[in-house]
Amino acid sequence: MSRSYVHGYQPRENQRLQDQANALVQLFHSGTHYQKGSRVLEAGCGVGAQTITLARNSPNASFTSIDISSESIAEATKAVRSAGLNNVHFDKADIFNLPFEPGSFDHVFVCHLLEHLARPAHALKVLKRLIKVGGTITVIEGDHDSAYFHPDSEAAKLAIACQVELQRRAGGNALIGRELFPLLRQAGFGSISVIPRMVYVDSSKPDLVSGFTRDTFTAMIEGIRDAALEAEIIDPATFDRGIQDLYRTTEADGVFCYTFFKAIAAKT
Amino acid sequence: MSRSYVHGYQPRENQRLQDQANALVQLFHSGTHYQKGSRVLEAGCGVGAQTITLARNSPNASFTSIDISSESIAEATKAVRSAGLNNVHFDKADIFNLPFEPGSFDHVFVCHLLEHLARPAHALKVLKRLIKVGGTITVIEGDHDSAYFHPDSEAAKLAIACQVELQRRAGGNALIGRELFPLLRQAGFGSISVIPRMVYVDSSKPDLVSGFTRDTFTAMIEGIRDAALEAEIIDPATFDRGIQDLYRTTEADGVFCYTFFKAIAAKT
Repeated sequence: MSRSYVHGYQPRENQRLQDQANALVQLFHSGTHYQKGSRVLEAGCGVGAQTITLARNSPNASFTSIDISSESIAEATKAVRSAGLNNVHFDKADIFNLPFEPGSFDHVFVCHLLEHLARPAHALKVLKRLIKVGGTITVIEGDHDSAYFHPDSEAAKLAIACQVELQRRAGGNALIGRELFPLLRQAGFGSISVIPRMVYVDSSKPDLVSGFTRDTFTAMIEGIRDAALEAEIIDPATFDRGIQDLYRTTEADGVFCYTFFKAIAAKT
Repeated sequence: MSRSYVHGYQPRENQRLQDQANALVQLFHSGTHYQKGSRVLEAGCGVGAQTITLARNSPNASFTSIDISSESIAEATKAVRSAGLNNVHFDKADIFNLPFEPGSFDHVFVCHLLEHLARPAHALKVLKRLIKVGGTITVIEGDHDSAYFHPDSEAAKLAIACQVELQRRAGGNALIGRELFPLLRQAGFGSISVIPRMVYVDSSKPDLVSGFTRDTFTAMIEGIRDAALEAEIIDPATFDRGIQDLYRTTEADGVFCYTFFKAIAAKT
């Protein structure tokens, strides 16, 4: 009985995890499909979190996915092989010193990269050189000031602010989502269109409660505890209460909001 | 030449203003259409800002629009008559003491009302009694903490916080948008679905720059200057800098974000 329950349960659990992944994948990738024969550069692919979906959604385009970390490239390569995809080529490369000729690509795709760079507009200019005239760039970034929730909590806001401050000290910007329009404009792109992709979570969406509020956002903030305390940005009691309050938003009457920004612009 | 220019221009300007009104109308009203013969209560109609669209989008439903202010009812009546609509009946009434029998309505529509009430969940319970089993309630509310912008500005945030504080002192809650799910749940509604309606504004959308950022949101905050200073919530220099910074977001590289929440729930 318990065994058949387990058998019955696992596929459902797998489906749940699949649905949850799908919800965020859809949020980032809807509208992004590249034509047959397109050459696409994915700049800053990390461990390939977006690469698989990118390559799967455009099976007749060919992708060059680069990252500055060899370890990440190794992970990403493994993930793409496991997924049975053969339209991705990986390169270890620095975004400010790329081994490609001007106009090498039809399109560029960038996700969660600019937030880590001290000179995001310069990075966009560098990438623009690599795009053929008439080609496009797609950029997806989050913005931590877009996080608000119920019950509201000053401590939770302060815990999130630690991540913003640590990223700032590392030369990045965790509030960059709202700036995609001015950054692309500054880099000289045309036809800029920014579409916010808001994640709204309440207990009628249990997949997002666990998959986004708890296991993605709160887990990320919880993960910077040592760094935040060491940097003396916050005291341990406030940080821990903040984390507790973020978990509190996953209860039956809780609500959590966050917005990613997706921009598409053209090299004119 | 100048005359023909003016003739050519005005229809375009009128269209622009029409488009701009349409953008926010669409944001609130898309998805809200009531069947032929439905009896719908609009609770807190004010001067009829939503009444005309409501009544026009459901020409075969009959609306009862109430407000506690006679002056507002007079304005709303005039507006609805001018629009040539005859499916709206107005009543001056207090939402906590309504002259209707239980189950008098198929549906209830509420927009920008709960934010002004000290007991929003109680108001929802009162309204639920008036709905037939199987009927619905639609609720639309803003949330001022969902406002963020580029360039970022501490003074602008403090100016907005004045509005939140004044509304709190008056017994209301300018951050109520995120709470629609728990409030409807607390009031005993079923099948609650909350859909955020985010307004994203950059200079590629000049109609929203003027119609929303400048003439709606910033004008609203600017309008509480005297009250905020009298209540000693802020000093004049900071408030004025905050307003200046809000106007700054309407420039070519500026961005402004705000989210309204629309909820639909059923009386089960």
